[in-house]
Amino acid sequence: MNVNGKAYKTIWINKDDEKLVQIIDQRPLPFEFVIEDIRTVDEMARAIREMHLRGAGLIGVAAAMGMYLAALNADPDNFDADIKRFAEQLNATRPTAANLKWGIDRQLSAISAGNSITEKIAIAKNTAENTAEEDEVSARKIGEYGVKLIEEIASEKDGPVNILTHCNAGWLAFADFGSATAPIYTAFEKGIDVHVWVDETRPRNQGARLTAWELKQHGVPHTIIADNTGGHLMQHNMVDIIFVGADRVSYTGDVANKIGTYLKALAAKDNGVPFYVTFPSSTFDWEIEDGVADIPIEQRDAAEVTCIRGRDVEDGSLRVVNITPEGSPAANYAFDVTPRKLITGLISERGICAADKYEVLKLYPEKK
Amino acid sequence: MNVNGKAYKTIWINKDDEKLVQIIDQRPLPFEFVIEDIRTVDEMARAIREMHLRGAGLIGVAAAMGMYLAALNADPDNFDADIKRFAEQLNATRPTAANLKWGIDRQLSAISAGNSITEKIAIAKNTAENTAEEDEVSARKIGEYGVKLIEEIASEKDGPVNILTHCNAGWLAFADFGSATAPIYTAFEKGIDVHVWVDETRPRNQGARLTAWELKQHGVPHTIIADNTGGHLMQHNMVDIIFVGADRVSYTGDVANKIGTYLKALAAKDNGVPFYVTFPSSTFDWEIEDGVADIPIEQRDAAEVTCIRGRDVEDGSLRVVNITPEGSPAANYAFDVTPRKLITGLISERGICAADKYEVLKLYPEKK
Repeated sequence: MNVNGKAYKTIWINKDDEKLVQIIDQRPLPFEFVIEDIRTVDEMARAIREMHLRGAGLIGVAAAMGMYLAALNADPDNFDADIKRFAEQLNATRPTAANLKWGIDRQLSAISAGNSITEKIAIAKNTAENTAEEDEVSARKIGEYGVKLIEEIASEKDGPVNILTHCNAGWLAFADFGSATAPIYTAFEKGIDVHVWVDETRPRNQGARLTAWELKQHGVPHTIIADNTGGHLMQHNMVDIIFVGADRVSYTGDVANKIGTYLKALAAKDNGVPFYVTFPSSTFDWEIEDGVADIPIEQRDAAEVTCIRGRDVEDGSLRVVNITPEGSPAANYAFDVTPRKLITGLISERGICAADKYEVLKLYPEKK
Repeated sequence: MNVNGKAYKTIWINKDDEKLVQIIDQRPLPFEFVIEDIRTVDEMARAIREMHLRGAGLIGVAAAMGMYLAALNADPDNFDADIKRFAEQLNATRPTAANLKWGIDRQLSAISAGNSITEKIAIAKNTAENTAEEDEVSARKIGEYGVKLIEEIASEKDGPVNILTHCNAGWLAFADFGSATAPIYTAFEKGIDVHVWVDETRPRNQGARLTAWELKQHGVPHTIIADNTGGHLMQHNMVDIIFVGADRVSYTGDVANKIGTYLKALAAKDNGVPFYVTFPSSTFDWEIEDGVADIPIEQRDAAEVTCIRGRDVEDGSLRVVNITPEGSPAANYAFDVTPRKLITGLISERGICAADKYEVLKLYPEKK
């Protein structure tokens, strides 16, 4: 998507130096736009763990790109053991994201088919680029399925279709285009009148920092709200539909997504607001049956709750400020799990289905 | 309660200068402890409107103190008209808080009984001080009723009783002791092992700034969490009971409280966690039947969402930083209404009752 009028992806292999992977460093957004160079698995592991990049789809692509760097950097005399070690290193960076393991496993399988180191590296590069391209294709398909829901609402009301989203499942969370934002961008391109309520998404403020920035760059009308606000808006018919992303979806339809998603789903159910979860198929976990009990939930540094980065309103400098009393502890659970009973539908590149294992398996018959 | 080991109220008439009202200015907390002098109705109206002080009970007491200043400052030749004008000025400061009008009306009625200006001023002073004292007595009674619920849980489990609260219904929100914190402080004084999950409470962070500070000053174990977190904790049996305050309660049991309360009540219902609302009787609205439809919800400045104040982690200075993209709008609804169906019980100084008009009227037979 466009940044200051120029088209970008979130991650790419440099055209002139094919051993260099480049990413948009999302940490300084929305204040500064920074491109980061990544040449080693260590650097990619840190970028994933410390959230220079984040988001379900993008973590999968970054894992595949990281495995390409693994192939480039592995000792030719100890190649297979090095690849295995690098895979484990990348796999340990984020515990909840299903796409991470999916991207690594895809590369391990692809690389193992090469007959020489040179061929293995070429395969790894090809697989990394395909993973990025497929991620974007999935996002566009999600947009095509999701936009029909928006069109239906638009045909039945005056004024804009009010869409609520939580966290950033935008193009910054994928190679491009996004999942939750895909129906929104598609509707906007079709000239449908849309307005997006952007949940701030504490503690890392991915909504206020990233989703609002994306929508503003693209010209989509939006309003930032505190995470506490969605219930009130839904009680007063100010939300027509909700789209969120997912970090892991059990094949039975339970959805791990950014902490707070569950609370919005409860309010949606209580007020009859349709609640859709959007994600590429790589986000499915085909093993876990009970998502609430069994999807591991990452705990992150308390400093993400107690400190926040912003631009000084007086001198314009970027500063990190502490916003809590000295000595008060904080906890930081990064995700929660929304049980299937609260979800209207799941939208992947395969189509829309109910959050129910029988309906899911109809769309994925090869998984039966 | 104690601040750095010394006992304070949130508002008082100065002992040596009886024309001076003093308050704890809550805006610089938890970073600085500032006492503010208030001598005029203008100053009190600004203190209420701009939230130098806030909280259901304290707004009622501040209104009564403001009317005492009104009596002091009214033109003796135009006394009744001035009192009426000052009452209207104070009444216009905050639209949702029921205690505001209650405190003003109580003073109007009391002052009207005086036979001379001197007597009217004396009555106003007396009424203001009584209002503050009764507020504290109510809080202590709420503590005695609420602590029984905590004791019951403590008798049935090992480890601390985990209590979640939203916003600040602590002693800073009242003359002293608090409403939601009253059962907690009472339990703590009785030596019961308690731990409090403190919702940050965006956008003004009354939980992270004020409740955490209060609990820390008093030595009560607590952990600050993002507002998004409570649902996850409840799904995993990490919350035993919830106490929140209220800004207005319909006599039918619907509760207006800080935005986001409704979302926590939904999660409590979904997970079988007892959800109690604590408030002095002055918070009741005896007119409104449907709280969700009819309690007015204050909208505040978007800057409360887009900017935040904190202490620079590098140089320790206090700074206001902007945390959103330039040009992205924000909305700031200050309260939401939790419908009675989600509430386990209401706790006032009269006792505990169901959130149901028949049960409420049993406790308040004079309102039938």
